[in-house]
Amino acid sequence: MPKTFPDNSVGLVVPQLMQFSEPLMLACGRELNNYQLAYETYGQLNANRSNAVLICHALSSNHHAAGYHEGDEKPGWWDACIGPGKPIDTQRFFVVCANNIGGCHGSTGPSSINPATGKPWGPDFPPLRARDWVHAQARLGDKLGIHQWAAIVGGSLGGMQAMRWSLEYPEKLRHCVVIASAMKLTAQNIAFNEIARNAIRSDPDFHQGNYAEYNTIPKRGLTLARMIGHVTYLSDDLMGRKFGRELRSGNFQQGSYNPVEFEVESYLHYQGDKFSEVFDANTYILITRILDYFDLAREYDDDPVKAFSQALCQFLVISFTTDWRFAPERSREITDALIAAGKDVCYAEIDAPQGHDAFLLPIERYLSLFAAYMQRVADEVSI
Amino acid sequence: MPKTFPDNSVGLVVPQLMQFSEPLMLACGRELNNYQLAYETYGQLNANRSNAVLICHALSSNHHAAGYHEGDEKPGWWDACIGPGKPIDTQRFFVVCANNIGGCHGSTGPSSINPATGKPWGPDFPPLRARDWVHAQARLGDKLGIHQWAAIVGGSLGGMQAMRWSLEYPEKLRHCVVIASAMKLTAQNIAFNEIARNAIRSDPDFHQGNYAEYNTIPKRGLTLARMIGHVTYLSDDLMGRKFGRELRSGNFQQGSYNPVEFEVESYLHYQGDKFSEVFDANTYILITRILDYFDLAREYDDDPVKAFSQALCQFLVISFTTDWRFAPERSREITDALIAAGKDVCYAEIDAPQGHDAFLLPIERYLSLFAAYMQRVADEVSI
Repeated sequence: MPKTFPDNSVGLVVPQLMQFSEPLMLACGRELNNYQLAYETYGQLNANRSNAVLICHALSSNHHAAGYHEGDEKPGWWDACIGPGKPIDTQRFFVVCANNIGGCHGSTGPSSINPATGKPWGPDFPPLRARDWVHAQARLGDKLGIHQWAAIVGGSLGGMQAMRWSLEYPEKLRHCVVIASAMKLTAQNIAFNEIARNAIRSDPDFHQGNYAEYNTIPKRGLTLARMIGHVTYLSDDLMGRKFGRELRSGNFQQGSYNPVEFEVESYLHYQGDKFSEVFDANTYILITRILDYFDLAREYDDDPVKAFSQALCQFLVISFTTDWRFAPERSREITDALIAAGKDVCYAEIDAPQGHDAFLLPIERYLSLFAAYMQRVADEVSI
Repeated sequence: MPKTFPDNSVGLVVPQLMQFSEPLMLACGRELNNYQLAYETYGQLNANRSNAVLICHALSSNHHAAGYHEGDEKPGWWDACIGPGKPIDTQRFFVVCANNIGGCHGSTGPSSINPATGKPWGPDFPPLRARDWVHAQARLGDKLGIHQWAAIVGGSLGGMQAMRWSLEYPEKLRHCVVIASAMKLTAQNIAFNEIARNAIRSDPDFHQGNYAEYNTIPKRGLTLARMIGHVTYLSDDLMGRKFGRELRSGNFQQGSYNPVEFEVESYLHYQGDKFSEVFDANTYILITRILDYFDLAREYDDDPVKAFSQALCQFLVISFTTDWRFAPERSREITDALIAAGKDVCYAEIDAPQGHDAFLLPIERYLSLFAAYMQRVADEVSI
């Protein structure tokens, strides 16, 4: 943990837990009882409860979006965008971020105990859809006394939740910020997710998801899954700049190969290893399935214009030029549908070499336009 | 096997074997003794031995480039381009294609017996570089009485070999055809290869490459490796057209997930499974390493112009618009270097949705310009 926090940090943060005893009816037809959500808040809720911003997290992140936990060297995953003077300015907003159900960082998920069996849910945890997350988040809002969000904000899978919010609870948000997202995945995206899941399932330590009973984790499979994901979150160009084709050994091995010879390989192994120690494999499978099945307009005759006609909020849509997993075309489709539906939408395509990861990074034009938009949102609150 | 072969097929083909007793000095400093190459030939060598064309194969293919083996339903991997009246016209050319050393389809490789131990080489097979393949191919040419090739042709890793030929044996070829290739891989390409290798190494049945001793094969790992490769050989666009987001079950499963729900997943599993039954895992690791290490200009002060200054032949370079694994930029770099080196080069960028796989497919403009170029090569032979 830094000895002193930066001025624009929310500082030390303590995660909280909220218990829910009323059953949550899920899209799959099953019910989830007695679940809990881990969440964090930053900033102060104002008197008329109108300055709340909900952050929706993506595949591999969680409720720890900003600031520092006791003992941590690194801040939360979106610290670049949340804090005093940052785009989501905690001097003006009350910010809420919850680990979604099905997650593995404190909210009820596959590694939680299934009350019916007294053992971890494992692979028997109900399959979820993004709308289940939205409903759970809405209940959390109710408990916190937030009946309308100033904005709901998310990148990637987080943007999918934000869009779903605008259709499911049109009166409950005034602004929807959708970053590096899509109305549905492409076949290529689904293919990469399936390969990642297959890597996990192929690991003999997976035991069809019941690894907890065997006192093991499918570490090799989860490492591979993360490596695959990681390559697709970066641009080819950035990988070239970051690693070039540098040999770790400085030169060829003669007569035999090193198992890991190039810098890029070493980096991927490190990232994969680290991830496999903190993330749950059943959660990874469950959340990639949520991504694959997400299809904003499915219940609206596959017509995005008809879908967005439900919405009452204003929209900010942002994409990044080198993001090939959630390409700018996908964001333009969102924007086009919003315009056709007569909605108020700002769209920005940010020139950035970092690929999909760009949405997490302090890129100047990105931060400044995001800040300008959010300032407008905050100014409305003050009126 | 079709009852009758198409008119433009080379028809029934019988693979041949060539034994080599003189040791081959390898780039790694080790020697390979008493090796063999499996190869096929199509067409007739003319009296002055001037009409020979060498085909260099890529990662997952072999010497069976055209025609049908006894009992086969499908022809060789490049049947679209080799045969009577096809771009590489077997009425005019004598075509040779060899399985490279290190391969697993009849040439000496990791699954061959190591004479020193009496057991399969496995992971102890010497690491190879593309130039080792080129030297082995040159010796095969010598044995066949071919002292100068009319053309050396290859796609992908095959194109890398063709380029290497032009520098190693400038007098031994008159034309070099480089399709969907690159002077070196990008960091992203290396990353995908390393993930594939890691998938194989992570399989407990791999036994550090000594799986033959355990009477098993790392089928799960090799399946994963192939799935990863396959996604990167196709374009996002093509996968969208081919599979869309169709659900195999026609609809959602309620309450639980099918392990394989989308058409694209089913396709990848099928491709991966099939491949894992016919390809050797140590060969896969070895050949992806050859790809990763290939760097045409490394010994020429990293200057491609200096490298290509060695060449004496003429060049045809072809790329495909949606190939993101060996992007058109890479082919333009080759072409630019050739022009700067004062070489005679034709370059064509073919508009095709199929990604890297396009080089194997009967795409009209591709075939017609390839045929036009090869006709010029054939006309020179006749003079």
